[in-house]
Amino acid sequence: MFHFNRVVIVGVGLLGGSIGRALRERGLATDIVGVGRSGRVPREAIAIGAIDRVSEDLATAAQGADLAIICTPVGTVASAVQTCAEVIAPDGMITDVGSTKATIVDAVEAAGHANRFCGSHPLAGGHQSGADHSSPTLLDGKLVVVTPSEQTPETLTLRTEQLWRALGARTLRMAPQAHDEALARTSHLPHVVASVLAGVTPRELLPLVATGWRDTTRVAEGNAHLWRQILEENAESVLRALENFDFALDDWIIALRDRDGDRLEQLLASGKAIRDALGN
Amino acid sequence: MFHFNRVVIVGVGLLGGSIGRALRERGLATDIVGVGRSGRVPREAIAIGAIDRVSEDLATAAQGADLAIICTPVGTVASAVQTCAEVIAPDGMITDVGSTKATIVDAVEAAGHANRFCGSHPLAGGHQSGADHSSPTLLDGKLVVVTPSEQTPETLTLRTEQLWRALGARTLRMAPQAHDEALARTSHLPHVVASVLAGVTPRELLPLVATGWRDTTRVAEGNAHLWRQILEENAESVLRALENFDFALDDWIIALRDRDGDRLEQLLASGKAIRDALGN
Repeated sequence: MFHFNRVVIVGVGLLGGSIGRALRERGLATDIVGVGRSGRVPREAIAIGAIDRVSEDLATAAQGADLAIICTPVGTVASAVQTCAEVIAPDGMITDVGSTKATIVDAVEAAGHANRFCGSHPLAGGHQSGADHSSPTLLDGKLVVVTPSEQTPETLTLRTEQLWRALGARTLRMAPQAHDEALARTSHLPHVVASVLAGVTPRELLPLVATGWRDTTRVAEGNAHLWRQILEENAESVLRALENFDFALDDWIIALRDRDGDRLEQLLASGKAIRDALGN
Repeated sequence: MFHFNRVVIVGVGLLGGSIGRALRERGLATDIVGVGRSGRVPREAIAIGAIDRVSEDLATAAQGADLAIICTPVGTVASAVQTCAEVIAPDGMITDVGSTKATIVDAVEAAGHANRFCGSHPLAGGHQSGADHSSPTLLDGKLVVVTPSEQTPETLTLRTEQLWRALGARTLRMAPQAHDEALARTSHLPHVVASVLAGVTPRELLPLVATGWRDTTRVAEGNAHLWRQILEENAESVLRALENFDFALDDWIIALRDRDGDRLEQLLASGKAIRDALGN
């Protein structure tokens, strides 16, 4: 089992806070520094044991650190990685938790930091955000996709996988672009679909919604500014996923226009078969 | 408070079972007859107190009854209403729990039974079906849409509303067609969208889904044969809702093609605003 003298967590929200608490509970770090504007959130993060102290300056906090985990919105991950890479300890490592990977990895590698950074994406969100909803067991049994590129040293990829496993998660290795294409379909598309559905519902009909509408639109509650960045970073894959969805929707429209009950039942059954394959 | 000597519940599943148990707990009925094929389900329904006995023959069971509640799939509601209307007590009343209303009401009225039947739709489903998941409190505080037509006697509408309120629900009166148009948007569209989304997800990507996909596709688990009937009965309104959704989706596709981040954020924010207006 490895141990970190100093860990920097940039962005202490649900994931950053949970990672800090897991590092501490498992005795993996001596000093955990949360980077973010000082104020209510970092104070709470210290109070619940997610971090030991807070720093407003990333370059200072990361100077000589062993590990930096970037938990900011995806649009600012690459620049935070670059800042850390320039000051981190010689054998220090950097990873992140962003929902998109290719744009981030490309930017980091273009800046010449491929030997310090290996991207990660823990599939461990929730309906609620913020360090006050964090938990030292949030990652337990969850899947973390680790996304080395061709430039990532194998030892760094292995250490990144070890880190997540030490925090209780399972890992899966994927290339950054393959990750983004897959997540466009399993995460970004559902978000857009939920948002379109909520958006087309006239407010005066809200008293007439039941469980189905509630479940189907729930993720549309997500922060619009964060999701805008995810969609922008992964625009090409999300676009393909949306066009594919749009194409499939046309089948339903045609079946309804034709009043083709057998075809509707086929379509319903094939959606159900895939949903049932997952379980609840 | 009124009282029924004999109530016939046709189809003793989640809703039929819950109605039976609520009628009993509130002391509203002397004799509750469940109609359906004898076997495991009716025996369980008797065991949990949802019905007193079971009959396989609707015409016999409904002979001289005070109240019949049709809880079958929507495709068979109208014929069950007609069977009941011919044998029920002279002041007996019939209602149903179907998710679509206009086709049913039209068929019942064409058969000359408008003075016996007033349609209802309790917005009180759940992820699980069957009498074994029923509860005497399922209807507590839930909304039941009551859908009289121009031919429905006002006294019958009032008695139908009283019935649901006596069972713990709130009521809202709507014309059958208005109900169907509204529910196409608040219930049938979400079901189709969830099913399309599940259907376009490659099975090999299921290990990469998280909470968002799970929530957004949950209703796609619904029984395909029951949902086919709902979509067929309400085809015109569901088609309009799907076309409207499809049109809105095009806005997102254009914004993604144009890499228009501001527009994406606007779209995300407007979906979120409507979702947030509902609460969880």
